[in-house]
Amino acid sequence: MRKKFVVFSVIAASAIGAFANDSLIKQALDAGLKPIPESKSKLYKIIDNPKNPITEAKVRLGKKLYFDPRLSKSGLISCNTCHNLATGGVDGVDVSTGHKWAHNPHHLNSPTVYNAVFNIKQFWDGRSPDLENQAQGPMQAHVEMAATKKHIEDVVNSIPQYLKEFRKAYHNPKMKPTFKDVADTIGLFERTLVTPSRFDKYLNGDKNALTKDEKEGLKIFINKGCVTCHNGIGIGGGSMQPFPIVKPFKYANVGDFKGNKNGLVKVPTLRNILETAPYFHNGTVWDIKEAIKIMGETQLGIKISDDEANKIKAFFGALTGKKPYIKYPTLPPRTTKTPKPDLN
Amino acid sequence: MRKKFVVFSVIAASAIGAFANDSLIKQALDAGLKPIPESKSKLYKIIDNPKNPITEAKVRLGKKLYFDPRLSKSGLISCNTCHNLATGGVDGVDVSTGHKWAHNPHHLNSPTVYNAVFNIKQFWDGRSPDLENQAQGPMQAHVEMAATKKHIEDVVNSIPQYLKEFRKAYHNPKMKPTFKDVADTIGLFERTLVTPSRFDKYLNGDKNALTKDEKEGLKIFINKGCVTCHNGIGIGGGSMQPFPIVKPFKYANVGDFKGNKNGLVKVPTLRNILETAPYFHNGTVWDIKEAIKIMGETQLGIKISDDEANKIKAFFGALTGKKPYIKYPTLPPRTTKTPKPDLN
Repeated sequence: MRKKFVVFSVIAASAIGAFANDSLIKQALDAGLKPIPESKSKLYKIIDNPKNPITEAKVRLGKKLYFDPRLSKSGLISCNTCHNLATGGVDGVDVSTGHKWAHNPHHLNSPTVYNAVFNIKQFWDGRSPDLENQAQGPMQAHVEMAATKKHIEDVVNSIPQYLKEFRKAYHNPKMKPTFKDVADTIGLFERTLVTPSRFDKYLNGDKNALTKDEKEGLKIFINKGCVTCHNGIGIGGGSMQPFPIVKPFKYANVGDFKGNKNGLVKVPTLRNILETAPYFHNGTVWDIKEAIKIMGETQLGIKISDDEANKIKAFFGALTGKKPYIKYPTLPPRTTKTPKPDLN
Repeated sequence: MRKKFVVFSVIAASAIGAFANDSLIKQALDAGLKPIPESKSKLYKIIDNPKNPITEAKVRLGKKLYFDPRLSKSGLISCNTCHNLATGGVDGVDVSTGHKWAHNPHHLNSPTVYNAVFNIKQFWDGRSPDLENQAQGPMQAHVEMAATKKHIEDVVNSIPQYLKEFRKAYHNPKMKPTFKDVADTIGLFERTLVTPSRFDKYLNGDKNALTKDEKEGLKIFINKGCVTCHNGIGIGGGSMQPFPIVKPFKYANVGDFKGNKNGLVKVPTLRNILETAPYFHNGTVWDIKEAIKIMGETQLGIKISDDEANKIKAFFGALTGKKPYIKYPTLPPRTTKTPKPDLN
């Protein structure tokens, strides 16, 4: 008798759930939220670089370069230092810190590399059109990897296994990889760093992929207007917006970043947001609930209650995605021709 | 006819090879060189910690901690920063560089973590008896990870997934991991970082595992007396020795390291030596051939010719081992209770 009753309750609950979910999925899609496609070929149409198509050989090489600290002047800093694939694709410090422990002069926080391929532009001020172009910046910035183009070209051309892998990947037996080739190959690897989550399952039709709290959080996220900017596949990353709009940002005094020449800032992705503290362009907020409330004030001119922030946070939990499987590479050894690191 | 001749030549060559090899293998073993056992159970008898036996759960957790920069004061430096598993277990810079870009005050070079389990003692001055004890040093050193014990304990205890993994790995549902538990678990992971090479195959009886040049290099290595200190499973790491003995070390002026209180220095392992430049305790020599010649002069009082150095280098190529397969970890996210990084 008891068993029958339980079964009945479950059926009733799912029926109600299904109804509610169907409508919420539709609402989310109507509001502009989009899933990462489940089909690999559909996904590749979005993430691929038509000028330099993704292949296994290029991605494998790009991964090595991404993890190779010898591309930096000091020999100690790799792309992965500030965009650590073990910690949500970020470094987890407020201000990005590079060569000789220099801090970013504008007190900018490293954005995540995961799902950055879905961003309309790269960098907080959107000055870079794509990941290949973006990768050229930090390698050369004096406060980051501090390398010259020549240093990077000398490193890869002095290591026979790198030469071999470039030549094989690009079907060019005489290739002498340039700085641009290195950045392009790193960018291509970064294009593959996509993290499908339970929210994608949900948008793709699995009504039970989100919990009750997560669904409530999603509703609030849509109804309060967060979705106006945080939408698309990236749940952010799709536009440049003014910040702040309605009320001043209480930590605006940290750093001097004011957006691009029109005062616009790239909307960051919310995928894996629970793994990428601290928040905001200047890394001033460590608690996601505080960040949610601040966004309500500065962007929407509304007060988000503690309970609402908790539910939105619960929804954000469903945005934590499955990370690509990364075998930590064994990098090809330096030779006597490889430029020596310079710690100064 | 031609085919028959080829077959005959091959047989003749192997017969001669077999004779020569058998005798050289015996000579190498008699000289004290030992292979990494092929049998996993034999290997584990050597590398295991009887007080804290190796298990899959502990090693998996130890790997996460090894890669976790949040254990450092700054949040930017992990064990892997100076002992990078992608680059031979070292950082590839002359002087190890840590918190706030501080250099080791004695200008010491980071030794490799690969096969460090075979070392009789740890650190250049051998002040640490084992890897568990060693791991406590760099985490706390002001010029390395610069953390307090409390910082590290607060980090792991504030992250629920770490707590869960410690409790499961140590079968203690109430465990509150201490600093020592963290170091012990990292040390246990490091015990597994063993890299069998072609030279092990050779010592284990595969006469064809080395090339002709490598065998000639091995003969010179034995006959010149290099093997007097570079022996055992680690091909080094088994004793503390004076340095220099016969003639002064030409780069002794870099740093002030003079060995332990008796002036003795730990003999480093030669496994993966072609991947771990620069060489010597103060990282002053980048070319392995120069390092080989210097050792001849300072330790043996002999001149090693260019040709001999080339052949010894060829033999060293056979010491480059297969690295353990490392899936790059996804680290559990920080919580609002996790101590914030301090870049200062």
